[in-house]
Amino acid sequence: MRKILAVLAVTVTVFSVEGLRGLPSGYCESGKHHGSKTEPQFKEKYFTQTMDHFNFNSMGNGTFSQRYLITDEYWKKGYGPIFFYTGNEGNILEFALNSGFITELAAQQRALVIFAEHRYYGKSLPFGKDSFNIPQIGLLTVEQALADYAVMITELKQQLAATDCPVIVFGGSYGGMLSVYMRLKYPNIVAGALAASAPILSTAGLGDSRQFFRDVTADFENVAPECRDAVRGAFHQLKELAEREDYSCIQSEFSLCKPPSSAQDIHQLNGLLRNAFTLMAMLDYPYSTHFMGNMPANPVKVACETMLSGSDLLTNLRNTAGIVYNSTGLLTCFDLYNLYLECADPTGCGLGFDSLAWDYQACTEIDLCYESNNVTDMFPPMPFTEKDRELYCSKRWAVVPRPDWLKIQFWGDALSTASNIIFSNGDLDPWANGGVRKSLSSSLIAINISGGAHHLDLRGSNDADPVSVVRARKTEADLIAQWVKMERTRLRQSS
Amino acid sequence: MRKILAVLAVTVTVFSVEGLRGLPSGYCESGKHHGSKTEPQFKEKYFTQTMDHFNFNSMGNGTFSQRYLITDEYWKKGYGPIFFYTGNEGNILEFALNSGFITELAAQQRALVIFAEHRYYGKSLPFGKDSFNIPQIGLLTVEQALADYAVMITELKQQLAATDCPVIVFGGSYGGMLSVYMRLKYPNIVAGALAASAPILSTAGLGDSRQFFRDVTADFENVAPECRDAVRGAFHQLKELAEREDYSCIQSEFSLCKPPSSAQDIHQLNGLLRNAFTLMAMLDYPYSTHFMGNMPANPVKVACETMLSGSDLLTNLRNTAGIVYNSTGLLTCFDLYNLYLECADPTGCGLGFDSLAWDYQACTEIDLCYESNNVTDMFPPMPFTEKDRELYCSKRWAVVPRPDWLKIQFWGDALSTASNIIFSNGDLDPWANGGVRKSLSSSLIAINISGGAHHLDLRGSNDADPVSVVRARKTEADLIAQWVKMERTRLRQSS
Repeated sequence: MRKILAVLAVTVTVFSVEGLRGLPSGYCESGKHHGSKTEPQFKEKYFTQTMDHFNFNSMGNGTFSQRYLITDEYWKKGYGPIFFYTGNEGNILEFALNSGFITELAAQQRALVIFAEHRYYGKSLPFGKDSFNIPQIGLLTVEQALADYAVMITELKQQLAATDCPVIVFGGSYGGMLSVYMRLKYPNIVAGALAASAPILSTAGLGDSRQFFRDVTADFENVAPECRDAVRGAFHQLKELAEREDYSCIQSEFSLCKPPSSAQDIHQLNGLLRNAFTLMAMLDYPYSTHFMGNMPANPVKVACETMLSGSDLLTNLRNTAGIVYNSTGLLTCFDLYNLYLECADPTGCGLGFDSLAWDYQACTEIDLCYESNNVTDMFPPMPFTEKDRELYCSKRWAVVPRPDWLKIQFWGDALSTASNIIFSNGDLDPWANGGVRKSLSSSLIAINISGGAHHLDLRGSNDADPVSVVRARKTEADLIAQWVKMERTRLRQSS
Repeated sequence: MRKILAVLAVTVTVFSVEGLRGLPSGYCESGKHHGSKTEPQFKEKYFTQTMDHFNFNSMGNGTFSQRYLITDEYWKKGYGPIFFYTGNEGNILEFALNSGFITELAAQQRALVIFAEHRYYGKSLPFGKDSFNIPQIGLLTVEQALADYAVMITELKQQLAATDCPVIVFGGSYGGMLSVYMRLKYPNIVAGALAASAPILSTAGLGDSRQFFRDVTADFENVAPECRDAVRGAFHQLKELAEREDYSCIQSEFSLCKPPSSAQDIHQLNGLLRNAFTLMAMLDYPYSTHFMGNMPANPVKVACETMLSGSDLLTNLRNTAGIVYNSTGLLTCFDLYNLYLECADPTGCGLGFDSLAWDYQACTEIDLCYESNNVTDMFPPMPFTEKDRELYCSKRWAVVPRPDWLKIQFWGDALSTASNIIFSNGDLDPWANGGVRKSLSSSLIAINISGGAHHLDLRGSNDADPVSVVRARKTEADLIAQWVKMERTRLRQSS
């Protein structure tokens, strides 16, 4: 669950497909990169996609160009399966670069690989730069995205003479939710889904709104209870300064470009600080990554070392946030309202196109009413209720969220009629407990990855991988091979 | 598959719910009406429904009043199942009045019964009389209708303290298709579907475009091959008159109010005549009915007697059409362009609101490209290709049909992952072979009703019923009882 780093999105487009061929130097500089020895040769293509699948008379009675990346270098043509990544909220290149497991598995199972970009993200903007205006934004829904993938798969299979090739969908985070939904709603098209770190329950309003930040907190606490206490203490000091309206002190302690001047500014600062911890918890991989910003190896450990490095808690907190927001060390001050950041917050990090789109989705179908309260977590109390959401969304997008809709449309926890879905989750990931954690049947399989962060299993293999993820990938590979085999039989019988 | 008789729709609204309480005299005058001894006391209610489930920012960011009929007189409150009729293309009252099996079964199984009206039909017009304008018509889709039912069921269950009550959906014809789709797309909400005479394959473009009129022809041929020959002969004579442009003779033979004056008029006449045979084949019940117009008992037999009653084939043809279009005997002449009629034709009978809506649906998602050719059927060659459809629809509604969409969205014949659906069909029904005729698994069950017309099994029991339909209803009742039992277990476990 993420919002794309606007500055990163710009950087990435520079190397584009070329970048995929010869990865930019430094891409895998820490932790040796294993698995497929050669990087896949993705081609960047565009699919002529229906704008509005659900209204034949709307403004969208036309088409737009939807981007996808494709490689057939491992494919046994016309026979091997199709591994289809159901792109989520960002530039699809990012996901292709950070989902090495899929190409490694494609090499093993001789699959065609397609990474499809989600409408309204990356280069797949139905109305170009006007896409984020009202009413053009209205064609951004989960249902439209799924229909895009269903239509794209169907047509590409025809074009590629692959009508008898089983299709397996893959996705991480929201992309994993989409993979689940594809299998629920289009089992005629996809034979199975690997849904990594897909919080299908919490985003449908099922579960405890305190779970998310409680689990972020637990990651730091598990490194050292003192770490959690230091974070809580630092936020407490910030609170006292704010109550005294000692804004110049806050400015200097946090290296802000401008002094805060209101409760709103303090709220924004608290949100940014909390978000830094969230990202480090999500991206707590055992090697450095450049997926959502730049992260050192084991960032939670690094954060705790920083939090416990000196006696000035506020300085420690600033430096810890700097791991996320100033990984290059180039920023001389932080602009509260103009940081290029990854944002895991429910709403309110609205920076850049991709964040705009995600903000809209969180205002319509995806329910991210998670709160911190300083009791079950170490953060300042920041409630975010359905009422808060409704106020924000009607003001920002002139929409009224429908909190029950996702549960109705995508089944909530009533999944017993589904089949062939893997729900994988890492226990370091704060999103994990918003997903399916126990197997529901012999073909609805939950995999726990001990010591794994946000969809670690989708990443390419690495020497620093914990054994749990190596095992998880093996189980996933075996299940997918089974599904492919079963589907091949079905397709043959029907053709 | 039908278009509602505009004049009948008007008549029906007169007795409204009152009519349901004390059925209008003559309603069941032929064939004794059995089953539940007392008629159900339906209440007419309105549900506040979301206008646009798939766009939060559209013109439809509001609600409309969707009608439903409900009776709890058989219901074991809070425990018995919910039998939910997924209303199709017409006034919902019509379906409630002609689906006596559902209330008979409700009495047996102590069910709550709801008949929900399809948006854009009957009294459920999202934009009132403007509903059929462009772009207002755009919110008429199968997906919106299904979402309406999903939301309505979910909310009514809450309101009625029925959250643990299993829901079974019922539907006939297009309503049966909707029942199937509900089970495919919302198995979290509905435990099973009885889909009577649901042509889910032919309307998705699967199968032979000649099948429909071939099967209409077969019904008449099976009464007597001479009957088929007489019909073919009569159409041939009409063709010769038209080729000679002997319009005054055609006018007098067919009692037309005005003489035809063009090939278009002749095409319209041929279409109306063919439609009369289609309706008699569809509604070939063993007792008289007032469902889609007034039909005598065994109308195909009556038609054949008429076709073979005298030596003047054209007179016989006119009188046969009169069975359908002039059942009251009150018309003194036929107006080619202003008949109040039931229309089973793909497009082009566009009369009245309900016909408008169906015409739009046939121009968007529902593919009804069926042809007659005078080789595999007894009718004049009347091709209707995808190209013809596209031309008509872009001119009439400014839409481009998407012939592959229904197959993608609702799985076509790739149903192996589905469960708990009964596909019942009568072998007299020309729609039957556009549906599922063979069981696909132990829970995807095809039932053939020998000697049955269009969803005969949904009608109330009648002394004239063939034994096949009595048996079919028994099988259906048993399966539904099983599904209810299974679902009750599931709901208990999850609550």
